[in-house]
Amino acid sequence: MIPEREEKSFHMSPDEFRRHGHAVVEWIADYYSRIESFPVLSQVKAGEIRESLPANAPAKRESLEAILKDLSGKILPGVTHWQSPNFFAFFPGNASGPAILGDLLSSGLGVQGMLWATSPACTELETLVLDWLVPELGLPEKFLSTSSGGGVIQDTASSATLCAVLAARERATNYRSNQEGSRGKLVAYTSAQAHSSVEKAVKIAGIGRENLRLIEVDETFAMKAEALLATVKQDRQSGLVPFFVCATVGTTSSNAIDPVLEIGKICREYDLWLHVDAAMSGTAALCPEFRYLHGGLEYADSYCFNPHKWMFTNFDCDCFYVADRKALIQALSVLPEYLRNKATESGSVIDYRDWQIPLGRRFRSLKLWFVLRYYGIEGLRFHVREHVRLAQQFAGWVQSDDRFELAAPIPLNLICFRLKSGDEGNQALMDALNRSGDLYLTHTKLNDKLTLRLCVGQANTTERHVKRAWKRIQEEASALKI
Amino acid sequence: MIPEREEKSFHMSPDEFRRHGHAVVEWIADYYSRIESFPVLSQVKAGEIRESLPANAPAKRESLEAILKDLSGKILPGVTHWQSPNFFAFFPGNASGPAILGDLLSSGLGVQGMLWATSPACTELETLVLDWLVPELGLPEKFLSTSSGGGVIQDTASSATLCAVLAARERATNYRSNQEGSRGKLVAYTSAQAHSSVEKAVKIAGIGRENLRLIEVDETFAMKAEALLATVKQDRQSGLVPFFVCATVGTTSSNAIDPVLEIGKICREYDLWLHVDAAMSGTAALCPEFRYLHGGLEYADSYCFNPHKWMFTNFDCDCFYVADRKALIQALSVLPEYLRNKATESGSVIDYRDWQIPLGRRFRSLKLWFVLRYYGIEGLRFHVREHVRLAQQFAGWVQSDDRFELAAPIPLNLICFRLKSGDEGNQALMDALNRSGDLYLTHTKLNDKLTLRLCVGQANTTERHVKRAWKRIQEEASALKI
Repeated sequence: MIPEREEKSFHMSPDEFRRHGHAVVEWIADYYSRIESFPVLSQVKAGEIRESLPANAPAKRESLEAILKDLSGKILPGVTHWQSPNFFAFFPGNASGPAILGDLLSSGLGVQGMLWATSPACTELETLVLDWLVPELGLPEKFLSTSSGGGVIQDTASSATLCAVLAARERATNYRSNQEGSRGKLVAYTSAQAHSSVEKAVKIAGIGRENLRLIEVDETFAMKAEALLATVKQDRQSGLVPFFVCATVGTTSSNAIDPVLEIGKICREYDLWLHVDAAMSGTAALCPEFRYLHGGLEYADSYCFNPHKWMFTNFDCDCFYVADRKALIQALSVLPEYLRNKATESGSVIDYRDWQIPLGRRFRSLKLWFVLRYYGIEGLRFHVREHVRLAQQFAGWVQSDDRFELAAPIPLNLICFRLKSGDEGNQALMDALNRSGDLYLTHTKLNDKLTLRLCVGQANTTERHVKRAWKRIQEEASALKI
Repeated sequence: MIPEREEKSFHMSPDEFRRHGHAVVEWIADYYSRIESFPVLSQVKAGEIRESLPANAPAKRESLEAILKDLSGKILPGVTHWQSPNFFAFFPGNASGPAILGDLLSSGLGVQGMLWATSPACTELETLVLDWLVPELGLPEKFLSTSSGGGVIQDTASSATLCAVLAARERATNYRSNQEGSRGKLVAYTSAQAHSSVEKAVKIAGIGRENLRLIEVDETFAMKAEALLATVKQDRQSGLVPFFVCATVGTTSSNAIDPVLEIGKICREYDLWLHVDAAMSGTAALCPEFRYLHGGLEYADSYCFNPHKWMFTNFDCDCFYVADRKALIQALSVLPEYLRNKATESGSVIDYRDWQIPLGRRFRSLKLWFVLRYYGIEGLRFHVREHVRLAQQFAGWVQSDDRFELAAPIPLNLICFRLKSGDEGNQALMDALNRSGDLYLTHTKLNDKLTLRLCVGQANTTERHVKRAWKRIQEEASALKI
C-alpha cells in the first residue's frame, strides 16, 4: 500500500497560482512600462536563443521563479516588440489590457467550443459578439446569425480565405467536390496585389495555382474590374468554370482598396463566390466617415477582418462572416458518432466546428467581448481616428522633404514612401533604421521599386512616436553613404 | 487646436493592468477552488446565454468590474467545466497553472512568429522544445530539427493531418498538385475507427471522400494491416495512385492502437506517406513502460500528439513532426515581397509560416516550455501513471458488476463500457448522469452498440473522483426504469 497516494501532486494549487499569477501580471505590467527601452527589432543572431538554453528537457521539476528568470534573461533578447509604440512594420498585431485579461480567462476556463453542447456560452457569446459588429461596421444584414448567415472567429484571415474557397468550391460543383475531389476546371481570381493566403488557399483546396488568375491593378494598386470581367469571360469561353473571387479592402502591400461594388456585380452576373478580405482596414469602418470601405458588400458571399490587427484584440482573432451559413457548413461538416448529441440533432444550435478547419476551439470571443465593452465603440473609434490622423500628418512630412516621394494613395494609416534615389538607398535606409532598434518598418515593391511601408496602427503609438520616427528617418537618410 | 490630444486614451495603463490583472488571477484561482460545486455539463437551454446579454455593442466604455460581474453571473452558467476533476467526457482538454501563465505571457508579449525575423525567440524556443520531446517520447531521430525533419506547434491534430495530407499529395504528384490541382487518382487510407479529421482533410485537399478508404478493424478496433495491403494492391491494379495512410495510436472512439510497424512496412514498400495520429495517447510514451506505443514510427513520415489533451498544456497545442521538412515546406510555402528578409534568404533559419496553414502565429511554445519545466518529466510521468492506474481500477469495478461489460481493451486511461441491457438503457444512464451535473461522460458506438466512454485524464482527477463517478454510475443504473 502506498500511503497518501492521492495527495501527491505536481500540479500548481490555486494558492500557488495566486502567487505566481500575481508575479506574472507584474512582469507584464513592468514589460509595458519599459517597452520603449528595448530595440524594437530583436538584434540576435540565428541560433543564439536556442544556444542559451539547455539541450534537453528537465528531468526534475523547476520553480516558476527560475522559469521567469530565464524568460527575462534569455528569451526577451530574442523578442521583436510588436507591442512597442515604435513598431511600424507589416500590419500591427495588437494586444491590449482587456484583451490579454479576456484571453487569460479563456485559458483559465479552458473550455472547448467545438459543439454548442461542449460549452454553450462559448458558442453563444461568439455568435452574439459577431452579430454586434454587423451594424457597427456597416456590414449587410445577411451576415447576421439571425438572418441566413452568421459570423465565426477564425485564427487568421488565411484560414477564413481557405474556408471561403472550400465553400465556393462545393457550391460551384453542386456539392460534389468533397466527394469526388477537385477536378481541374475551376478558376479563382484575385488581384496581383492580393495577400499570399489566396494563392495558398487555392493550392490547399486542390484548385491549382495554374487556375488562379492574378488580375491586373490600376494606378492605385486596386483590382481593375474590367480586367476581371474580361478574364472571366475568356475562361468561360475556354470551357473553364470561374467560381471564386477574392477582393481586398486594404492590401498588405499598400492598403489598396479594390472596387468591391463593381466586382460584386460581376460576381452576381457570373455566379462567382465573392470573398472580401479586409484584414486590417475593416476596423476603420467602425467610424462613419470610413464606412464607405464596406460599400458593395451586399454582393459578398463572405467577408473577414482581423480584430487582432487594428482592434486591440490579441492574436488569434479573425472575424469571418458568410451570407449563407448552409453553404459553409455543408462544405466543412463531418459528424462522427462520438460527437453526436441531442442539441446538435435538434438543429437549434450552432456547432462552430462545422465553420472551420480544426475541430477544437478555445473561448476566443471572451477577449473580443472584453475589448468591445472596455473601449466601447467610442474608444475604438477614437484610436482609429488618431492613427489615421497621425499617418496623414506623416505623409505630409514626406511630401515636404524633396528627397522622398509617396508611392501609393493613403486611404487610412499606411504610408508607402521611398527615397527618390533608388532601391539601394531605400534598402540601406531601412536596414539602418531597423538595426538602430529605434523603430521597425518593412518594405514592399510597387511598380517594381523598393518601397518603405510605415503603418501607424500599434495601439500605443502616439504623435510623439510618429514624430520621432520621421526624425530618425531623416537623420539616417542624411547619413547614407550612397 | 485640441489641447492634450496625445494624452487622451482609452487604453488600460500598466498600473490599471496590474490592478485588473490581479483581480482576474484571483477570479481564476477562486474558480478552481470551487470548480467541483458547478454542474460539470452546463444545464442551460439553447439561446439562454445570448438572451441574458445586451443585443447591441456598448457605445460607451464600461468598467472591467462590470465585465467580470457579467462573466460570473451570466457567462459561467453556460460553461461546461472541462477543468473539473469530474470531467470524463471525450478526451481531456487540460489546462494547468504553468500553462495558463505561459500563455498569459504569450498574450502579453503579443509577438508574431510567422517568420524567424519577426521574433527569433518565438521560433527558436519552439524548435528547441519540440526537439526536447523527441527522445522523451521515444520518437525517431529523423524528427529532430537537427536531422532532416523537425517539429512545429499546430492548433490541432486536424490541422496536422491536413498538413500531412498536403505534403503527401505534393510528393506523390512530383510537386505538381499545388500547380495543377488535385487530379482524382490519388487514394488515401485510414481505419474505420479513425478520427473524422482524416475525412475532413481529404475533402479539403481536393482528394475527395470517394478516394478515402476506411480499412476494416480487428476485434480490438485496430486497423487490419492485411486489409490495408489488399486494398492498396487492388487500387493500384485499378490504375489509382495510393499516396497516404493515417494510422492512429489511440482512436477517439475506444483508444485502439493501430499496428504502426506493420502498416509502416506496407507504406515503405508502396511509397505511401505514413502519418501517425497519437493525439491523446502519445503523452503516455513519456513513461518507458508505454513507449511501445511509438513502435514502428521509424517508418512514419509525420506524427502528431496534443499536449493540450493529456500533457496539461492548454489549448491550442498540437506537436506535429515531419521526417523530411523539405516536403512540408515545399507544399506550404508562398513568399510575397512584403515578407522577404535577409534571414529567410540566408536559408539558416526556420520560418514556421511555411509549416502550417495560417500565416500568423502566436508564441505557443512558451506554455509548453513552462509545463515541461514546472512539472519536469518526472511530474508528467507521475500524473500519466496515476491516471492509467485509476482507469484500470475503474475497469476492474466494471467487471465486478454483473450488469455491465467492458466493450474494448483498455491500453491506457479510456474505459469503454456499457450496461448489458442494450442501447436504450445506456442512453438513459448517460443522460441521467450528465443531467445530474455530478460528472460528464460521452458515448460512442462499438460493434453497433451504444457504449459509454469514461476517460481518466483531467489533470485534477484523483482516486476520490473516479470512485464517486463509479458510485454515481451504479446508483443511476439501479434507478433506471428500463
